[in-house]
Amino acid sequence: MNSEFVDRLVMEQDTKIIFLLMDGLGGLPKPETGETELEAAHTPNLDALARGSLCGLLDPIGYGITPGSGPAHFALFGYDPEKNNVGRGLLAAAGIDFPMGEDDLFARVNFATINDHGMVTDRRAGRIDSDTNRRLCEKLHREINLSRNVDVFFETVKEHRALLTLRGKGLSDAIADTDPEATGKPPLPPQQLAGEAQETVRIIAELLDQAGRVLADEQQANTILLRGFARYRKYPSLRDRFKIDPLAIANYPMYRGIARLLGMEVHPLTDSIAAEFDALRDCFDSHTFFFLHVKPTDSRGEDGDFEAKVRVIEEVDSLLPRLTSLKPDVLVVTGDHSTPAIMASHSWHPVPVILASATARPDRVETFGERACIAGGMGRLPMKYLMGLALAHAGRLTKFGA
Amino acid sequence: MNSEFVDRLVMEQDTKIIFLLMDGLGGLPKPETGETELEAAHTPNLDALARGSLCGLLDPIGYGITPGSGPAHFALFGYDPEKNNVGRGLLAAAGIDFPMGEDDLFARVNFATINDHGMVTDRRAGRIDSDTNRRLCEKLHREINLSRNVDVFFETVKEHRALLTLRGKGLSDAIADTDPEATGKPPLPPQQLAGEAQETVRIIAELLDQAGRVLADEQQANTILLRGFARYRKYPSLRDRFKIDPLAIANYPMYRGIARLLGMEVHPLTDSIAAEFDALRDCFDSHTFFFLHVKPTDSRGEDGDFEAKVRVIEEVDSLLPRLTSLKPDVLVVTGDHSTPAIMASHSWHPVPVILASATARPDRVETFGERACIAGGMGRLPMKYLMGLALAHAGRLTKFGA
Repeated sequence: MNSEFVDRLVMEQDTKIIFLLMDGLGGLPKPETGETELEAAHTPNLDALARGSLCGLLDPIGYGITPGSGPAHFALFGYDPEKNNVGRGLLAAAGIDFPMGEDDLFARVNFATINDHGMVTDRRAGRIDSDTNRRLCEKLHREINLSRNVDVFFETVKEHRALLTLRGKGLSDAIADTDPEATGKPPLPPQQLAGEAQETVRIIAELLDQAGRVLADEQQANTILLRGFARYRKYPSLRDRFKIDPLAIANYPMYRGIARLLGMEVHPLTDSIAAEFDALRDCFDSHTFFFLHVKPTDSRGEDGDFEAKVRVIEEVDSLLPRLTSLKPDVLVVTGDHSTPAIMASHSWHPVPVILASATARPDRVETFGERACIAGGMGRLPMKYLMGLALAHAGRLTKFGA
Repeated sequence: MNSEFVDRLVMEQDTKIIFLLMDGLGGLPKPETGETELEAAHTPNLDALARGSLCGLLDPIGYGITPGSGPAHFALFGYDPEKNNVGRGLLAAAGIDFPMGEDDLFARVNFATINDHGMVTDRRAGRIDSDTNRRLCEKLHREINLSRNVDVFFETVKEHRALLTLRGKGLSDAIADTDPEATGKPPLPPQQLAGEAQETVRIIAELLDQAGRVLADEQQANTILLRGFARYRKYPSLRDRFKIDPLAIANYPMYRGIARLLGMEVHPLTDSIAAEFDALRDCFDSHTFFFLHVKPTDSRGEDGDFEAKVRVIEEVDSLLPRLTSLKPDVLVVTGDHSTPAIMASHSWHPVPVILASATARPDRVETFGERACIAGGMGRLPMKYLMGLALAHAGRLTKFGA
């Protein structure tokens, strides 16, 4: 069964589904205690939710596969992550809500510093501030003038990061990064990864040449490095696939971008985890599907800060009653992947999940944790099937066959 | 996800992986005690390894499918066993390290006895000794002279078993066995299993006719029976797929053959299980992947000798510290399939597995056994995914997607 199997069975309903997503939730035991971040955290509300609910373990992509955030979130929303792997440039464009068009080719831009010998001395141009970034983007946009019929846009993201958009017919994204990923080396010339990209390579070479001249008199940001070339791609929306009215509450550009790519309404930025929970409560009547994204679990895992990750989980636990009191028909609590603090990186380990619903068949799981969820009634399953399960428990899937 | 998904994510690393394979490890309870061979065995070292490691159950092929050793080992090494089913003749050729060529067609040969009425009276020709076998192979090679442009080779395997190789353009392996698999019946004429094999059938019929005349004056081995026709086929090597430097330590031709087909270096024969463990230790610095194959678990299972199989497992357990003391980054202990002594044959039951690694997420399994492993954190999974998991835990797979 592929994860699109459910699409034909979807029915319109008024029931409400919440996905509470703690990014990088899954962990590994700290050797001193033998407990993971989630096991070590004091989580009375999550434990109570796990009791009487359906628990399990989700594989974001497959056995042994460490996912990036893009494919993991596609799986979370019921999109096959193998078939829907999304380019970083496109995520960046969606993340800043760039008004995308069919003929767009995106790339992530790093302003960088090169010395007189053309060697990169700082891949982030001293992390110039966003105002300087804006000034440089305007300058590049004003002064670059390509010989081909291609429009060029530069949009500030933050600090040294920007978005490049080339708009024109027949552009290819089979282009290697020009970022040498190390200092002391020159930027790489644009190179094609597949045969059809020759013309695009010429355009980018001309653009880089002009950009170098435009930025020549800058102290820090005297060149640009390009990464993650990706063409515009349209995905079937959550609304079209599942007849839900989705709202995303997320504070990081990448997740806001994924939500937009999948046709979700994206709530304005909030300033804390608690504010995200309150935003959900305030919008509960106006939507039927809620994606609440908590980033710091992943960030603290990436930092390698076990205790700080534990504290984020405990904060989420303390806020959980704000969701359960809304009495959603389905409340899912999970992560998009594991980010064990002891590895300080994403990992391939499966992610624990709770699915709470009046129609969930309870299992014997008494606490919310990686080990406890092994014994869950959901078993261990590919993450891409979670959305179908949520829809079913919300009474949104009709019978298959007579 | 197919099991080749990981190939694109493989990174070169210096980490070391050991696969300790007890052939036919899985079992069934002896009715008198209610314990399987593995559960009955005293295995303090394996139990200690299981605690703090990741355990689970592997399905070599699929639910209810009893595998031969060929497909089970392909699955073990991350090759889809459905797509890579390998003919017995090819395994036999690899097993004796026959110098194979692209145009080769292989078949397993049994020297056999027929009576004056052309009926098989002994399918193994009284298990003639290997010297007689060699004399007969030379005689056949010398005196057979086919009318088509096909070279013929006979190679002694052991006792009554030999390998036939036909070398020529356009040969087909869609040929049924000529072994009637019973005494009192005549050898079967070669028959095509698919349309393109007509010419090959004619060649084999001529060969069998000449072979009968060459052997007519032999007392015991006066005919040959052919089985397991298989054309040469090249498999992508473990080295190319996974960037590992593999060494196989195995004492049976079939497993040595599989290892060679997959491009592994094959250690010289050793004379005991303990010697296999010592060979691994001695070669530990020179390779990064080690396949240590223990045959007698399967042989004693096939014999129906429950207690003897228990003793083999206990011997392996006693030797385990020789591997753990090497501190490999990943140590996998499992079987290729089940061979329950009470069935005295291969079976379809899943095989318990331990994956020990610093990055393995522990579960609650306290002992190594079929029942205990049901509760393992690896869950129950197709064997073909084991290699990907091992590579992930050895830090040899990069992230998928941005």
